[in-house]
Parts: sequence; C-alpha cells; structure tokens
Amino acid sequence: MQSLHLECTNFINRNMKQYNRTLAEFLLQEVLHVEELFAYEYYNAHDLETTKMTLDIAAELAEKHLDEAFVASDRNEPQLLNGKVKVHPNLKNFIKENAETGLMAATSPFEYNGQQLPKMVYGAANYFLTSTHNAFVMYSDLTHGCIEMILEFGNEFLKKKVLPKLLNGEWLGTMCLTEPQAGSSLSEISTVAVQNQDGTYKIKGQKIFISAGDHDVTENIIHLVLARIEGAPKGSKGISLFAVPKQRIYSAESNDVKSIGIFHKMGQKATPAMHLAFGEQDNCIGFLLGEVNKGLPQMFKMMNSARLGVGLNGISIASAAYNLSHQYAKERIQGKTDRTSKEQCKIIEHADVKRMLLMQKSVVEGGLCLLLRCYKYLDLAKVSDSKNFGELAELLTPVAKTFGAEMGIQATNQGMQVLGGYGYTNDFRLEQLVRDVRISSIYEGTTGIHSLAIMGREIIKENGASLHLWKKEVELSIKKARTKDWMQTYANKLELACTEFFDTTLKLLDLLKKGKTKEYLADATIYMELFSILTIAWQWLDIAFAAKNEDPNDYFSYQNTLKYYYKYELSKASYLNKVLLNEDKVTV
Amino acid sequence: MQSLHLECTNFINRNMKQYNRTLAEFLLQEVLHVEELFAYEYYNAHDLETTKMTLDIAAELAEKHLDEAFVASDRNEPQLLNGKVKVHPNLKNFIKENAETGLMAATSPFEYNGQQLPKMVYGAANYFLTSTHNAFVMYSDLTHGCIEMILEFGNEFLKKKVLPKLLNGEWLGTMCLTEPQAGSSLSEISTVAVQNQDGTYKIKGQKIFISAGDHDVTENIIHLVLARIEGAPKGSKGISLFAVPKQRIYSAESNDVKSIGIFHKMGQKATPAMHLAFGEQDNCIGFLLGEVNKGLPQMFKMMNSARLGVGLNGISIASAAYNLSHQYAKERIQGKTDRTSKEQCKIIEHADVKRMLLMQKSVVEGGLCLLLRCYKYLDLAKVSDSKNFGELAELLTPVAKTFGAEMGIQATNQGMQVLGGYGYTNDFRLEQLVRDVRISSIYEGTTGIHSLAIMGREIIKENGASLHLWKKEVELSIKKARTKDWMQTYANKLELACTEFFDTTLKLLDLLKKGKTKEYLADATIYMELFSILTIAWQWLDIAFAAKNEDPNDYFSYQNTLKYYYKYELSKASYLNKVLLNEDKVTV
Repeated sequence: MQSLHLECTNFINRNMKQYNRTLAEFLLQEVLHVEELFAYEYYNAHDLETTKMTLDIAAELAEKHLDEAFVASDRNEPQLLNGKVKVHPNLKNFIKENAETGLMAATSPFEYNGQQLPKMVYGAANYFLTSTHNAFVMYSDLTHGCIEMILEFGNEFLKKKVLPKLLNGEWLGTMCLTEPQAGSSLSEISTVAVQNQDGTYKIKGQKIFISAGDHDVTENIIHLVLARIEGAPKGSKGISLFAVPKQRIYSAESNDVKSIGIFHKMGQKATPAMHLAFGEQDNCIGFLLGEVNKGLPQMFKMMNSARLGVGLNGISIASAAYNLSHQYAKERIQGKTDRTSKEQCKIIEHADVKRMLLMQKSVVEGGLCLLLRCYKYLDLAKVSDSKNFGELAELLTPVAKTFGAEMGIQATNQGMQVLGGYGYTNDFRLEQLVRDVRISSIYEGTTGIHSLAIMGREIIKENGASLHLWKKEVELSIKKARTKDWMQTYANKLELACTEFFDTTLKLLDLLKKGKTKEYLADATIYMELFSILTIAWQWLDIAFAAKNEDPNDYFSYQNTLKYYYKYELSKASYLNKVLLNEDKVTV
Repeated sequence: MQSLHLECTNFINRNMKQYNRTLAEFLLQEVLHVEELFAYEYYNAHDLETTKMTLDIAAELAEKHLDEAFVASDRNEPQLLNGKVKVHPNLKNFIKENAETGLMAATSPFEYNGQQLPKMVYGAANYFLTSTHNAFVMYSDLTHGCIEMILEFGNEFLKKKVLPKLLNGEWLGTMCLTEPQAGSSLSEISTVAVQNQDGTYKIKGQKIFISAGDHDVTENIIHLVLARIEGAPKGSKGISLFAVPKQRIYSAESNDVKSIGIFHKMGQKATPAMHLAFGEQDNCIGFLLGEVNKGLPQMFKMMNSARLGVGLNGISIASAAYNLSHQYAKERIQGKTDRTSKEQCKIIEHADVKRMLLMQKSVVEGGLCLLLRCYKYLDLAKVSDSKNFGELAELLTPVAKTFGAEMGIQATNQGMQVLGGYGYTNDFRLEQLVRDVRISSIYEGTTGIHSLAIMGREIIKENGASLHLWKKEVELSIKKARTKDWMQTYANKLELACTEFFDTTLKLLDLLKKGKTKEYLADATIYMELFSILTIAWQWLDIAFAAKNEDPNDYFSYQNTLKYYYKYELSKASYLNKVLLNEDKVTV
C-alpha cells in the first residue's frame, strides 16, 4: 500500500507533463497547422518558437504553483467567516506569476501590453494548467473573460482604470448572471440598476453560484453583473451589463457588495461559489459596460469563451484521469489474461482495461483537437474577411462544451474504474477528479440547454448555412484520409454516418415546417450527442492522418485510437438516428 | 433559496415512502406473484398480510433511524483514533431495532428463531432501508451474509455460540477477502492459517477495504476471512474460510485483530473501509467454516447474495435520486416551453426533463423488478426439485448487480442534472447520492469481472442451458404481452432484439470453438450491456402488462415508461450487436 501512496503523490509531475507537451505540439502543428495563423499581420510577432515558449511557461507554472495545491486546496475548502473568504495560499502566487509571465494578457492587443497571441496557443497552454488544477484556473479564466469584455465593450474609463489592474493580476474578475429565481432563464433576472447623476448606476439585487465571487487573493474584484435598468423592457431585451467592483475604484472603501452565503459543492472546492448581495445599503455603484439593454447578447460573447473553457475543463480533467489510470494500469499487477499462466500480469494487458484506457484517450485527444480547432476559428474570424470562421465557431462552441463535459465526465469515471477500489479512495487523485469534473455538464448552460441552442438556433439560421460549412470541412478531411489506403474504411464510415445524419436532420426539419416545434425539439439532447460523435470522429480522421511512424503493435497509437473510436463510439450514430426518427413521442 | 433548503430537509419522508410502498407491492403482487411462494410448505407461515407487515416494519425503521442520519453521518465520517473507530450514534439504534423487529433473522429458519420469510419479501423491505441510507444498511447486509454462511456451512460450535449473537444484533459481521497485493484476484491471497492442537487456527495476514471492518456499534465483530492453511495447494484450490472474531468468544479479551488504517472514500462514508491486521502478535484465533480448501466456492455463495445487495444498492440510491429530482421538477419554476408564453413553467414540463426523469424511473423500476425476480428464483430454488431456478439465479445475479450498478450510477447522475447547479451543492441529497452510488460498479466484483463471468462461465456451461432457460422465460412474457393490442409492437421489438442477440452469441461462440478465447472475451463488457438491456426490456414487458387503469395522459405511467425504455434504451441493442461483431480487434 505504501508504494501506491507514493505513486499518487508524485504522479502528475512525472508523467503528465510529457504527455501534455507531446499532445499539444502534435495537435497545434501537425493536425491543426497553427503556423497558418502566423501569416496574418495581427499574429506575426509569433511563430513556433513563441508557441513553445508559451507552453514552457504554462508547464512551469503548473508544476510550481498548481500541482501540489490540487489536493490540499480541496481538503481545506474555503469558508465564509465574518463576511470574508479565505482561500488556499498558493493561489496568490499562481495568479501573480500568471500575470507576470504575460499569460493573463497573452491574447490581448499590443496597445494594452498584450502579446496578440492566438487563442489557439493560449488554449493549449491553458490545457496544461487546467489538467493540473482545474479549480485554480477558474480564477484566471473568469478574469480573462472580463478582460475580453472590457476590451470589446468598455469605455475609456474602464479601459484606463480597470483593465490594467486585471491584466497585471492586481485584481480578478467574475461573471454574475444567476439569481435564485432565475437559474438558466437569464431573461427573468431582477437585479435593478438606477442611474446616478454622474452616469454611474446604483445596483441592487442578489446573485448566486458566483464562482470565485469572493476571496483574499486580490483586494478588489470586478464583477460583471447583469441587471435591469429601471423602466427597461421586460424579458431579455431589457437587460444591461455592469462592471461592479467589490471596492471603490479609487479607494479601499467597500462598494456594498456583500458575501451572504457560500455553497458547499461536490467538487471544484477550491473555487468558492458565492451568494452575493449587491447594494443592501443602497450604496453599490456599477459602471455600464457596452450599450443599454444589450447586456445579454454582449454577455453571450463572454459566455462563448467561458463555454469553450468548460469544455476544456472536462477534457483537461479527463486527461489527468487518463494519465493517472494509464500509469496505474502499467504498474498494477492483478489477474491473468491466460488461465494457464503461472504469473499474474499487469492489468493493462487485460482487453477490458485497454478498452477503458482507449475510451479515455479517444475522448481526451479528440476533444482537445475540437477545442483547439474552435479557438483557431475564432483566431481566423478576428483577422479574416470571411464570415465563415465565426459561423463555424458559433456552431461548434456548444458541441465542444457539451462533448467536453459529458464525455469528460464519462472518461474520468472510466479512469476511476481502472483503479478499482483504490480509485474510490482519496489515496489517489481520481476521486477528486471525478467530483471536480461533474460540474461541467451543468455550468455555463446545461447539456439540455446547449442542445436546444443547436437545434433551435444554430442549425436553422440562414437555411442551415453553418451546418453546410461544417459539412464542407468534414468532406475535406474525408478526402484527405482517402489518400491513405488503410484509412479508406474509416473515411467511408464517416461519410455514411454523415449522410444518415443529414437525412435525419431533414426529416426533423419537416416537423418544424409543419409547426410541430415541440416535437422537433423534444430530443435535442440526443441530436447533440449524435452531432458530437460525428464531429469527434472527424477530428480523429485528421489526427490519424497526421500521425507518423507509429509502432503497429502499440495499442495506444493514434491509429489504434481512431479504430477504437470508430468501433465503439461512432457506431452509436446508427442507434441515435433511430431514436431521433422514432415516432413514439414519449415526452411531448 | 430558503424554501429550497426546506424541501431538501423534509423530502425523503414526505414523498419516497409512498412511492416505495406502491412500487414494492405492485412488483411483488401484480408483476411477480409473490403469493406463489406461500404455497410451499417452507413459506406457508406467510401471506400478503405478513408481507405488508414486513414492509411496514422496514418503512418505520427507515423513517425512525435512517432518514435523519443520512446526511449527518456523511459529514462526520468515522475516524480511526487510537486504534478505535467511532461511528454515528443512530447506527446502534438501527441495528438494535433491526434485530428486535425480526428483520435480521427474517429469512432464517424457524429452528433458529427465524421467520422463513421469502428473500423476495426481505429484498423489498431492504429496498426501503437502502434507499433511505445505503451506508447504514451495509452493516446489516454484511451480517445477514455471515448468518447465511454459518447456517449453510457452520459447525455446531458456530451455530450455537456465534449465530444467535448475530441474529439478535448483539454482534455484527464482515467479509474479509481483499488483500493489498490481491484485489480482484482472490486466488492470490496470502493470509495464513496454522492449525492449533484444539482444532482452531492461528490466523496471520492483512486485509484491506473491509467495509464495517471496525466500529463501536457492537462489542464483537465476526470477520469471515479467506486464508491459506499452511501447506495448502497454490491458487484458488488452497483457500479456506474462517470465522475470526474481533474479541474472543468467551471473554472480552482481544483476539489480536488490529485496525491499522482507514480509507477515506468519495462516498458511503458512514461505512468505514478498514485496513485490518490479523495476528500481528501471533495470537489471533479463527474457526474453520465449512471444508478445508473449499473457502472460495463457499464464499461465492455469500458473494452472490452480496452482489444482489450491490445491485439493490445502485437501484435504491437511484430511486432516492429519482424521487428527489421528480419532486424538484414539479416545484421548480424555470424557462418556457413556448416562447410566446408570458409565464415561466415548472421544469417538469420541458421534454428533456421528462426524458431524464423517465430514464431514472425506467432504471429504478425495471432494475428492482429484476432484483426481486432473482430473489424469487432463489426462494424457489430452496424449495423446488427443479434445478432451473438456481440456474436462472446464477445467470442473472451478475446482470442484476451490473445493471443496478452501472445504470444506477447513470440514473443518479441524471437526478443531479435535473437539479442543475443546486444538485452539485450539498443543500440537496443528490450530491451525496452521486458520491455514494459510484462504488457500486467497483465492489463485489467490478463490471469488467462480472462480464467475464457471464461470457466465460454462465452462458457456456452445459451447452448454454441457462441462456435457454432465460429465453423461455422471456418468450412467456412476450406471448403474454401479445394478448394486449397496444403491446404487440413492443413484444415484437423484444423478440427481434432477442433473435439478433442469439445470432451474435452464436457468432461469438464460433471464436471460442476456434480457440480464439481472447477475442471471444475481449468485449465481454459490451456483451453484458447488451444482455442487461434485453433483460430489463423483458421486465418492462411484464410491468406494463400488469399495470391497470392508467391515465393515458400521465407521462410517468408504467405504459409510457415502457415506451421510453424501448425507444431510448432497447434501441441501443442494434449498435451493441454491431460492436460485438466488428472485426477491428483494437484491444487484443
């Protein structure tokens, strides 16, 4: 038992670092061709060298400030005492160095001392951080989101007085959407904003589940708060967005933002989820961010980033679980693959253990490929005249979020299963990873809600233009794969699955044309599952195509993982099509 | 928020009690015809009246001693201090009353002051207890297993001196199998037994993950320990079983059983998982139970009971999750099913929420039906001359265990998903239920191991006799279902799925005949999933057939749940067949 304990303690540094590095560079360079971005003026300060340097910085940060704190910060979760929240001390160092090394400002423009780094590269670096300590990364991710919002919508005041403090890590940010009576229905929020004579607003209302909503890492916190200006129209068209500091901007005076509760969660405990009261003393000042009554569409811009972040959260946690369980399976001796054998074997030799590991690997690598691809579309959208990249990012963001969440949860649980009884104990990190990853399918929009967004918005707008763009991209990959003999079978399988999928889509759209909206939307979650599987199967075609000189006897090669994915996962497509076309409408 | 808290606190009593009662009586009487058992002499002290009384006792026990302690005993988990383990005080009362009301001895014979109650009825009563507090029930379940073992294999000494103390709750029992170096491979255990001159044995070795392995509920604990008698053959044929008390039988003197570690688990925290050292001072005495070197087959008898117990654990926890999330969905207002509507609706009106609830309901009720059916087969095996009932129980025990575990985990997670962010916090019991249920697919044999047992043993012995018995049973249900017009579609679907399944089975058996054992066994877990889905689809045919006077507009009727199961779950069969027949052997 003692040796098992040691494995656990030293594990992440020893193994995952190398795996992460190899995978990220392979996906960025060989599969997704990050260098295409460097040709654009906006990104031309960068090349493969700066890409590697960014990855180095992230790897070092992870090792120095995140690895050791992962378990400790979970076991001593933040408490709310006398209105104050104290968090794990390592977090301060992480945030400080995150800013000092330039990671916090990495994707910001030069004029704000940023580096104009492609999001794609930042995403890969963030994967290193998140797979080491997902809860700490919430703080930097949320702040990153705030920075983007102020860059996009902030006035001079916010850009001059607030933005620099966020960029240098002196302050951190949050997003405050959810209210007790309005969870997923943002149109129902009731926090009120009343304009003061100086143009600022008085904010009054309560928000719940505010991640990193209070802490002692920085003196000030910038909350992005959705609220309703007095007299605004009802529903989603009357919501505005405000930057509301915890302390006044020019002094350490309280801005009447009070922590009135802390939620105790199953996991991600190092990030407190706060219940905040704004303006209980009528003394909370907020600054309008962007336009009056445009808060919701503006916020969705931030949420799309946040959603990719959640997808990355699921995939990164699954990656840690995969690495840990893979290492365990290579060391743990148990059972025999052949009854006549005298010696027990390593459990990795059991077919079922291999299957569980390949499942994890296919999810982690296919999921990360999709996420980095989404970031690349966003990078291209920023600098290209074509609308297509933005459309593709819009279409695939809910897919990357949902797949990363749902399959990240399943993969992490497979990791625990590989460890058997030990996996269920806190002697290994698996137990915490399983608790942590579970939130992914809930926050930033549940799986059900993203599925409604895909069917109710993304695939129908402009006559399905986005879905056609997707199809063209997939067809390119299929064509490329056909140039390799061994890949033809798999190219054909994906092509067939796509044909069936479009067939199903057209039949479902018939329901919509007939006015049967409820029937059309009833199985949106199933549609999302199907679409995700095809989308990841497409990633695997590209991954396996890019793989070079693989050992044909290596079960964990990219080639064999593609085969795993097509045999065990893509095969689900046929049954999902059946469910979608089944006329027993049991839920409508 | 305050009101949500109150819902949580009072929930289990208010709602689940009625649901459990209605479901158990319906399954026992209308679907599975428990009264057939009362015709046998062994059970003829019983009737529907005593069945109801037993259920009453369990319901009352659950309310009185389990409900309130559920959360509290998780938040203050047992610690090992100065070699002693202290557990939640309610446990003592539960164990005491469990014995006093006769539940502990319910299925034991009259001659030991038992009631000769069918296991089927006891199983239903146990479902009430387990769905209220799964961790406390571990103590009584394990003791129940010890009782069965001593009844079956014990000598006069054990039956006179030990058995009565277990039956009256004065002592509790455990099963000690796993060792650090031998988790799932029991043939590799190394605990040693050396015979003393008086016929007792000196035991020496370490065991890990011993549930309820130490506590302060009773003064003595009877450990059933697998060990190897000095000079015994290697492997599984040299293992014997011993009853090893914590204290000497005739005095309060220590028997040299030491608690040297306690595992901290993700859930089921109220049951300590102990690391025990036997005979560190060479002073640990054990009593041989049954025959020398027959320990393993004897133990498997207990483990089959324990396995049904684990299946019941999964299903019972899923039942609690279903009840809680169903209630929440009926109360929680959020979103609109129709964009033009002015008012928000209850979330139960959303199609996707209905789907998630129906998924849970289909798992809970189909799973419980299968478990009670297995208990009935065991009851019949005890009194009937036919070997068939025992064969069916043997075949279906791993299925009931695995389905209850795997789908119990998924269903409980769906329950959390229904609650959204709240589900992830410990304001509701869902968070704990999700942590508790996760162990089900690991203990008493992982899913992978049971799947190997099904393919490697159950379906091949005596030329597949068991599988043919299963087929006959299913055919009877199909035939019966065809007598109702609306059920014909579903009867046909199951028939078709069975045909495909047998086809696949024959093709797989071809591999075995060709000596390709590894290829044959490689996807045993997939085979198990397929077989489980068909087996539960069969339960649903019987359940829906027995349902009477249902409201056609009730989404949660048995009829509609059958439709759910066939549309969303049975449809998986076609893809699983494909996976099984796919020739890409990626794991062999």
